[in-house]
Amino acid sequence: MGGKSAEDGLDENGHYTLVLVRHGESQWNKENRFTGWVDVPLAETGIDEAKRASNSLKSEGFSFDVMFTSLLQRAIKTGLLILEDLGLLWIPVDKDWRLNERHYGALQGLNKKETVEKHGSEQVNLWRRSYDTPPPPMSPDSPYWAGNQPQHKSLKDLPSTECLKDTVARVLPWWKEVCAPAIKSGRKVLVAAHGNSLRALVKYLDGLSDEEICSLNIPTAIPLVYKLDKNLKPVRAEGAYAPLSGRYLGDPEMVRNAIEGVANQTGKK
Amino acid sequence: MGGKSAEDGLDENGHYTLVLVRHGESQWNKENRFTGWVDVPLAETGIDEAKRASNSLKSEGFSFDVMFTSLLQRAIKTGLLILEDLGLLWIPVDKDWRLNERHYGALQGLNKKETVEKHGSEQVNLWRRSYDTPPPPMSPDSPYWAGNQPQHKSLKDLPSTECLKDTVARVLPWWKEVCAPAIKSGRKVLVAAHGNSLRALVKYLDGLSDEEICSLNIPTAIPLVYKLDKNLKPVRAEGAYAPLSGRYLGDPEMVRNAIEGVANQTGKK
Repeated sequence: MGGKSAEDGLDENGHYTLVLVRHGESQWNKENRFTGWVDVPLAETGIDEAKRASNSLKSEGFSFDVMFTSLLQRAIKTGLLILEDLGLLWIPVDKDWRLNERHYGALQGLNKKETVEKHGSEQVNLWRRSYDTPPPPMSPDSPYWAGNQPQHKSLKDLPSTECLKDTVARVLPWWKEVCAPAIKSGRKVLVAAHGNSLRALVKYLDGLSDEEICSLNIPTAIPLVYKLDKNLKPVRAEGAYAPLSGRYLGDPEMVRNAIEGVANQTGKK
Repeated sequence: MGGKSAEDGLDENGHYTLVLVRHGESQWNKENRFTGWVDVPLAETGIDEAKRASNSLKSEGFSFDVMFTSLLQRAIKTGLLILEDLGLLWIPVDKDWRLNERHYGALQGLNKKETVEKHGSEQVNLWRRSYDTPPPPMSPDSPYWAGNQPQHKSLKDLPSTECLKDTVARVLPWWKEVCAPAIKSGRKVLVAAHGNSLRALVKYLDGLSDEEICSLNIPTAIPLVYKLDKNLKPVRAEGAYAPLSGRYLGDPEMVRNAIEGVANQTGKK
């Protein structure tokens, strides 16, 4: 029960609660295109997914004191839909580029299957799933160059591509500077973010190896509930989906299908 | 042209731009009930009004760097709908109780016409439109007591009623501490708030007398655009609706009808 915690943010077992949610399906998830930092809106199905997520949270009595999200509308909107359903539009919402999706370099905008046909599935799988091989960099001439986006143009050192290791390298300072202190101050935190920024975070929280994180998928819009001890180390939840210590809210079969769906995006099915 | 300003926030005439918008119709506006601090959602018509507002802003090229709003969902949601339509969900949104609607005391929840029938129109008009006569205070036993609302329970000195003078007394410190510095730092500001918190603000900006402000109505979801000089004194806009220096965006007849509609809420028509 996420909502029933005291002023210090600790539940009846002396644990903090942290809820992570990946945005619902976007227009480009639907079109099976690499999105990265391109600011694509949620699809109608993504809006429905966010509502399903808020229903799960509501039915277990979750509440939040602050929401952290990225600078990309698909994550912001997913989080806001959840807050609205929970009657929490009034809580602070802190948007940070460090929660953005991994920058997919020159792949941004390309169809995933077509990219496989062009470069071969081995190469594409390397770009998608290796820990430290970034895709080819995006050119500043691209219409998708982050420097052309109003929310990113003032950032120093704009990325032109990222591997997951690069994403980890920006998510961890955010965790240490922003999120961990918020949790320790007793605030119940919701993080609405992206597949790879959340993989970066759970890699750190659960101490996963580079190999483990590369085969792990986080499904869209299914709240992932972590219980953390006073040192913010995860406490394995009953029903946790190994190797994570967190528990997905929702029907287990739906969760399993959702996770396997993510793994098959470049497949032929 | 609100969007075409330099980094210092000044337009081609050396003026800052400030846009105010009152939330769209809420469920209780529709039911003609005194709302105040009760956290009533927008009505469907209010959502449509917000979209009309964002269309006006879009067609004149407005953009914003920050939105200020209250802790009440009808204002927050109106502002967010506008930001979403303008592609600006990523900008910071700062929510402050000092932008809340005037606290209507024991009248909160009551139907406006029934209140007139019970107390007489003279008394109700005094409560609604005098500058310094607050309605009877709300009892802490009321289901609408602000201390029962999650967003207000940590406030010191919860109001039990307010006259417009009281609202002015909390809006002005917000202006001086939060909004004026943001504008002077070159940020283009959108304020999404309430009839009386906005009346409090324009009273100050335009130096209106207590009498003038009492006969002034601000219509729902029609952007009110102020141009301010370097000392944040308003520069009278062409087409300004006296005694305000600001200009409403939208068809003048629609604006006039909307303003007159607000004035007639306790009438018999």
